[in-house]
Amino acid sequence: MEGGKKVLPEIRRDWVTNRWVIFSPARAKRPSDFKSKSPVGHEEEQSNSCPFCLGREHHCAPEIFRVPPDDPNWKLRVIQNLYPALSRDVTPPPADETPGQLMTGFGFHDVVIETPLHSLHLSHLPPSQIALVLGAYTTRILHFLSDHPSIKYVQVFKNHGASAGASLTHSHSQIMALPFLPPAVAARLHSMKDYFNRTGKCSLCEFNSNDLLIHQSPHFVAIVPYAATFPFEMWIIPLAHSPHFHELNAHKAVDLGGILKLMLGKMALQLNNPPFNFMIQTSPLRDSASELPHSHWFLQIIPQLSVAAGFEIGTGCYINPVFPEDAAKVLREVNVLPSEGDD
Amino acid sequence: MEGGKKVLPEIRRDWVTNRWVIFSPARAKRPSDFKSKSPVGHEEEQSNSCPFCLGREHHCAPEIFRVPPDDPNWKLRVIQNLYPALSRDVTPPPADETPGQLMTGFGFHDVVIETPLHSLHLSHLPPSQIALVLGAYTTRILHFLSDHPSIKYVQVFKNHGASAGASLTHSHSQIMALPFLPPAVAARLHSMKDYFNRTGKCSLCEFNSNDLLIHQSPHFVAIVPYAATFPFEMWIIPLAHSPHFHELNAHKAVDLGGILKLMLGKMALQLNNPPFNFMIQTSPLRDSASELPHSHWFLQIIPQLSVAAGFEIGTGCYINPVFPEDAAKVLREVNVLPSEGDD
Repeated sequence: MEGGKKVLPEIRRDWVTNRWVIFSPARAKRPSDFKSKSPVGHEEEQSNSCPFCLGREHHCAPEIFRVPPDDPNWKLRVIQNLYPALSRDVTPPPADETPGQLMTGFGFHDVVIETPLHSLHLSHLPPSQIALVLGAYTTRILHFLSDHPSIKYVQVFKNHGASAGASLTHSHSQIMALPFLPPAVAARLHSMKDYFNRTGKCSLCEFNSNDLLIHQSPHFVAIVPYAATFPFEMWIIPLAHSPHFHELNAHKAVDLGGILKLMLGKMALQLNNPPFNFMIQTSPLRDSASELPHSHWFLQIIPQLSVAAGFEIGTGCYINPVFPEDAAKVLREVNVLPSEGDD
Repeated sequence: MEGGKKVLPEIRRDWVTNRWVIFSPARAKRPSDFKSKSPVGHEEEQSNSCPFCLGREHHCAPEIFRVPPDDPNWKLRVIQNLYPALSRDVTPPPADETPGQLMTGFGFHDVVIETPLHSLHLSHLPPSQIALVLGAYTTRILHFLSDHPSIKYVQVFKNHGASAGASLTHSHSQIMALPFLPPAVAARLHSMKDYFNRTGKCSLCEFNSNDLLIHQSPHFVAIVPYAATFPFEMWIIPLAHSPHFHELNAHKAVDLGGILKLMLGKMALQLNNPPFNFMIQTSPLRDSASELPHSHWFLQIIPQLSVAAGFEIGTGCYINPVFPEDAAKVLREVNVLPSEGDD
């Protein structure tokens, strides 16, 4: 260990996810030395084989909408996934059905093409364009809410880089609308409700640790969670209590676009352009805000620096070699220069 | 799709793990075409830098025991992990403590060196030698049971291949003794208890599907679970009801060694020597068998053929492109020839 300082392992539980995480700094290099070994490179300006590029729309599955509407020079498109995991063409289960052991695979699996240009990653876009992407998510979720009563939960996520699960390099994210409440979401809701019942407070409204803070914007705070499952995991949390992501308005979307861009930029600079995933962690689609004083949405960013192996698969616990306070300090201090075209 | 047959997606829940899995065969090649893209190669006869090889014992962390005892020509060794995730040197929490948000990182992290020879994988060993490895696990677990009252659960696991998390190529497995009940174990116990309360039966004693069967030995059955989380996931289950793996006796250990060898051989042959993990899924260490009519240990094998990405991290649900019945048929039919030295 650097300087001979012996740091003992700690086991922490997160009140939000109810996960146990083992912090084991003896296994790690210094927090500032973490770098991705499989960085995601910059893409070519154009690709002749990419179905997501401008002008190659006919190679894609059907379009759901584009922004601006009907514009051949679109800024983003929402399309069906050509290989959907769930099918929109089978009979949906009754909305009030208590699921047994088997359901037909009804659901929606959409793709958001975040930019017409092959060479740009999401973090290269100005906050106003990232806000359009976030707005496309909310538009789609509000559609499921009003038109598809069997949809219980909508998972928005982004896989960036092949080893984080992205099969195409053109910047995109995905929306899956599910006819059941997923187990990790149920566990999170249960844990947050338990915290609320004990304290009378929402566990995410309660956040106030300078040690874990990375950045604060007018409407959001970016932190490393107290029991981060993965090294350099980040959460972006709305400051005002809000159970559902789809309540995000256009004004706050630009602010979120800015802080998301900043976090992705810090991560890329500090960790050598790692592959990453982000997930929007929200509430069950049809529960009203008044039923959810305990639930608060957030955006979770996970750089892909390690593999889940036998211990993690077996126990659902994770071993994290970097203390969250150390990760937050490193991320707080890395300086991202504003890029051209930023608002 | 081959032959134009359209197979619709299905959503299945496993009664044992309480996991939802989406089966989405439209995304897959044919079940028989699955091959690992990063196969684990054969190792050199000897390695001059491997601390696990015979004669290089002084490069390892302290030994706990070897088989046979005190023999310089040992068949296996159990040693401390040189970089343990948990520390045996800190004060253990009181055995009756209800854990809050933070615990000291007390626990044990041991390594089982499965063979003195660098060139052999576990699946190359004869069943009697694999039985010694299984016996080393039970010996170690029984020690935690008798001597360490703060240990609540013991996770035995093996990572094979770098992309499955193995940092050394010499065949080994790991034992982690934990001062808390891990969340995935708690969820599994809860789900099995729920099944028992509804039906009066143990969900694993109940197994009787020829479609999911791979192989049966005198004391064990190898299956693909009904809602397999990963393509070609396998479970080896004792035929007689048994909550704790550490109840395994020497006679049954040889039988388990044989069926484990067979399953690893089938997997290697069919899937092109994939990296893999196996985990022993057992019951809380200190609950008595009479308290556990619902809980039944099993050994879970997962070939590493896909990555967990944003959807899986966000929801805890998995998308599996191979129906369990198809995977079981492929694995049932692949023929492994007995190797030299088998008993």
